[in-house]
Amino acid sequence: MNIGLDMMGGDLAPLEAVKGVLQYLNEDSSASVLFLIGDQPKVEQLLDEHKVSRERIQVIHSEQVIDMHEHPTKALKEKQRSSIAIGFHLLATGKIDSFISAGNTGAMLVGALFSIKALEGVLRPTISTIIPRENGNTGLLLDVGLNADCKPEQLNQFAIMGSVYAQLMLDISNPRVGLMNVGEEEGKGNLLAQATYPLLKENKHINFIGNIEGRDVLEDKADVMVCEGFTGNIILKLAESLYEITHRQKIEHEYFERFNFENYGGTPVLGVSKPVIIGHGISKAKAFKNMIKVAQQMIEKDVLGKMKEELK
Amino acid sequence: MNIGLDMMGGDLAPLEAVKGVLQYLNEDSSASVLFLIGDQPKVEQLLDEHKVSRERIQVIHSEQVIDMHEHPTKALKEKQRSSIAIGFHLLATGKIDSFISAGNTGAMLVGALFSIKALEGVLRPTISTIIPRENGNTGLLLDVGLNADCKPEQLNQFAIMGSVYAQLMLDISNPRVGLMNVGEEEGKGNLLAQATYPLLKENKHINFIGNIEGRDVLEDKADVMVCEGFTGNIILKLAESLYEITHRQKIEHEYFERFNFENYGGTPVLGVSKPVIIGHGISKAKAFKNMIKVAQQMIEKDVLGKMKEELK
Repeated sequence: MNIGLDMMGGDLAPLEAVKGVLQYLNEDSSASVLFLIGDQPKVEQLLDEHKVSRERIQVIHSEQVIDMHEHPTKALKEKQRSSIAIGFHLLATGKIDSFISAGNTGAMLVGALFSIKALEGVLRPTISTIIPRENGNTGLLLDVGLNADCKPEQLNQFAIMGSVYAQLMLDISNPRVGLMNVGEEEGKGNLLAQATYPLLKENKHINFIGNIEGRDVLEDKADVMVCEGFTGNIILKLAESLYEITHRQKIEHEYFERFNFENYGGTPVLGVSKPVIIGHGISKAKAFKNMIKVAQQMIEKDVLGKMKEELK
Repeated sequence: MNIGLDMMGGDLAPLEAVKGVLQYLNEDSSASVLFLIGDQPKVEQLLDEHKVSRERIQVIHSEQVIDMHEHPTKALKEKQRSSIAIGFHLLATGKIDSFISAGNTGAMLVGALFSIKALEGVLRPTISTIIPRENGNTGLLLDVGLNADCKPEQLNQFAIMGSVYAQLMLDISNPRVGLMNVGEEEGKGNLLAQATYPLLKENKHINFIGNIEGRDVLEDKADVMVCEGFTGNIILKLAESLYEITHRQKIEHEYFERFNFENYGGTPVLGVSKPVIIGHGISKAKAFKNMIKVAQQMIEKDVLGKMKEELK
């Protein structure tokens, strides 16, 4: 298994990426090979400094970097020698089985959508986030921003993809699917939610438990929470801000510690044919390590293959 | 000034309503008269028990109560002798200048929309919530659930009504208006947000500062945060759950204490011709007192008159 990692992506790259690689290799005993894509002299020097064994490493040189604020489509087109463009080229040609970057999110999404294929039958790929629950469990919220406007059929597919991910990656058997809404009863909500409810109710591939509300997001009510990307993105960023606020206010509590999104190692794009993992710009070593682990598990457990089956 | 209060609305009525009335009268030296609408013998007995002076009180008997789970339209129609129906009758006929209830929210909304007129020119009335900010300030979020689907023109009006409310009731001069969105730049967002941005930008009645994101909700970035009621309701209920979670987890911190929505005394319906205040079902004395105060101030400051002016 070959996992590609963009060494230039993120505010703290390549140093934290190298540290993450080291942590991963120290903990992992699989036969995975890491393809480190970046400024070769810099990366090699850091690997030397940190005494990283080269046994399971290949360094791929890239001359360019797509900055965080560049226009995604334009940058990907014009910077063919950038780490992200090379990563997607390697992924598309089968040299690597998965690609990870904490760089320009837009470029990663554009790459995921246009360099590799969508899973057969998928209307729109999606991105999700882990939501820590007060009782120690974790939930999955999707879509969190890839699809600001959605159709009911798309939300119905998100429910399936989220269920498969929750089952295989979060070890939740028979995950409860809830539809984000403004009331509990069927018939509540905006036009989209009203039209989505019957589809989820009829869907034999998921365990639909009905509508959930804002107060249920942090509670252990539904394992998979489905909404369009506008609402989901606002929830995600609000949840992320809780970690920052509690830190600034010196509120030390185990629960809010779990809002440190570094723990979860990036967001996989679901519904594309190969694992693509997008990290936060501020990713540190732990986040890089966890992203590599997520990629590895997604391949080992054939998460995308299972999604394809369930979407049929 | 005559303020009507539903004594039967809310889980803890009429006892907590009576206690709230007492607190209000002890603190307030205006000439306002409270019209207490409820089961007269019960209310009178509680007023006696709590030694509430009758000088500024009129008790209006109601034989029926609309329960929390009744269908709003049906209940209002069939229970003409209920405290909520009588309250709206008194409001519509000018016997009272404002009406408050912590009872069936749906019935209160239906009453506000159909018993009294909308303000001239208002496309859709709206409801808002106070959002406590980390730096001690307060923001206003609207709509929080009255309008699950919105048109850009409606959001544009919410921005005006929210600005007037923030100015007069929250003492924020020249309130900054932000459009809830998934990115900062103009052009981001779902179709609604994209179409709303230019309207807000052109709107001379407000101080538009651009898009805001989920991470800005609890930050002091915009004083008035505008969105449709689907997203707003989910944010509201998520924020409310923070108070419950921090309490359960025994996290004692001044900031999360401010998420106790009892402090803010209910939600006024904005865009109707007279102040209607809707309280939480779990309202206690302090919430009732604060709702009466909000009603009083809305009348004294002619908040709705100012809205009418700005909406022209």
